[in-house]
Amino acid sequence: MAGSLGVRVLRRDWGHSMAEVRGVSLGPIQVPRASDVLATTLREQILSGQFAQGEALPSERELIEYTQMSRTTVREALRMLESQGFVEMRTGRSGGPFARRPGSQAVEQSVRFAIQGEQTSETRLRETRQGVEPACAGLAAKYRTDEDLVRIDAATAAVDVAAASGSAEAFVLAKLEWHLAVSVASHNSLLIGFFKALATSIHEMADAGTLTDDLIAQTAAHHGPVVEAIRAQDVAAAESFMRSHIMADRHT
Amino acid sequence: MAGSLGVRVLRRDWGHSMAEVRGVSLGPIQVPRASDVLATTLREQILSGQFAQGEALPSERELIEYTQMSRTTVREALRMLESQGFVEMRTGRSGGPFARRPGSQAVEQSVRFAIQGEQTSETRLRETRQGVEPACAGLAAKYRTDEDLVRIDAATAAVDVAAASGSAEAFVLAKLEWHLAVSVASHNSLLIGFFKALATSIHEMADAGTLTDDLIAQTAAHHGPVVEAIRAQDVAAAESFMRSHIMADRHT
Repeated sequence: MAGSLGVRVLRRDWGHSMAEVRGVSLGPIQVPRASDVLATTLREQILSGQFAQGEALPSERELIEYTQMSRTTVREALRMLESQGFVEMRTGRSGGPFARRPGSQAVEQSVRFAIQGEQTSETRLRETRQGVEPACAGLAAKYRTDEDLVRIDAATAAVDVAAASGSAEAFVLAKLEWHLAVSVASHNSLLIGFFKALATSIHEMADAGTLTDDLIAQTAAHHGPVVEAIRAQDVAAAESFMRSHIMADRHT
Repeated sequence: MAGSLGVRVLRRDWGHSMAEVRGVSLGPIQVPRASDVLATTLREQILSGQFAQGEALPSERELIEYTQMSRTTVREALRMLESQGFVEMRTGRSGGPFARRPGSQAVEQSVRFAIQGEQTSETRLRETRQGVEPACAGLAAKYRTDEDLVRIDAATAAVDVAAASGSAEAFVLAKLEWHLAVSVASHNSLLIGFFKALATSIHEMADAGTLTDDLIAQTAAHHGPVVEAIRAQDVAAAESFMRSHIMADRHT
């Protein structure tokens, strides 16, 4: 299969400011970079299933041989695909490039980069979370497995232990884990990646110092109804309890 | 400033399976790749504002000189940063690498890759959209400017024209543009990127052939109340009208 690796040449794009030169229209010409062409070709072959998840791609040496491209081009293409989540470079004796299908991890990384890059304010992050997390809870109610429930129950117990410990730091961390456990139960990798980046960023900005014992007790008490709605597979209740929980919770 | 580019060497990670060799614990050693180290350094300098949005980074030649790294390493690092949205490579006489801050475009790309990579079903995409889009509409009501209203009104008019034309294809396309215009008015680049990828993917899967004239008229009629709520800056109404609209709309 690897031998059939055909590198598709992208069409040239003609720029907007054209000049008439001896009757021939000429504008700035964008020639695609060799590494982009190779990366696009490999990405499409991975997306179309020609290379399955976890399957070895041709080695660097083989790619050079098949494509007649330079070592530099091949390495650049592999690095680009790696940073987009399509290639995993394994080291060691049986190492080399392996095909991956990007999922929640790639989404999480890009959302984190966007939050950092745009220096998104805590207010905007909380607004975004208010939009996304009730939907996560609703889908968790719809799709949760028994294993998800075990994880959520453990996370709920850990929140109660942390709340009783009197340590605001421990409470905030346990609460983050609880919210992540609920989002994972949605089995929706787009929302999981998006929400992980949001929740972790909010967590990093939040000031546990503003939490009083009363607030901790109130917040922890909200978790129960959400969990029971997820257990009962009551989508509307899970959404609605999570929505009120987030609206009330401005500290963690 | 560029002269102060210090390449931070990442700490070596020790693997899990350790062997005692003459009293010294040894396990698999992960040596960071030079291109990863350089990419991380440059990324942090862009994120911390040492290179502003749109500012020229040191050229490839300068990077080689400052860092004493090979041309291959420098080029790999630049390609990685480019594919993550942190670097824009400009061609031509005043070309070279320029700093960028990744925003909605980078989120959109990663969500699209995840949708393609995981072959997310149309059902899952619609569920995700039901979670995200009402929040977009609510934030549009909160943050819309007069310019946003002009764009949304134009998109609404275009939907009505397409609905009257009798072409299901034209209607579906105009509708997509309307939904995108509403999401842009949220001024939340995370949600904009996320929603664009979702809506475009759903649009590509949707079958305009299932649309009847009656359905087209019903669907178009839903847009008005959403727009009026956004105009009136009524967050709850915008969310709620958008929610009912999406729930009712299984064809576009």
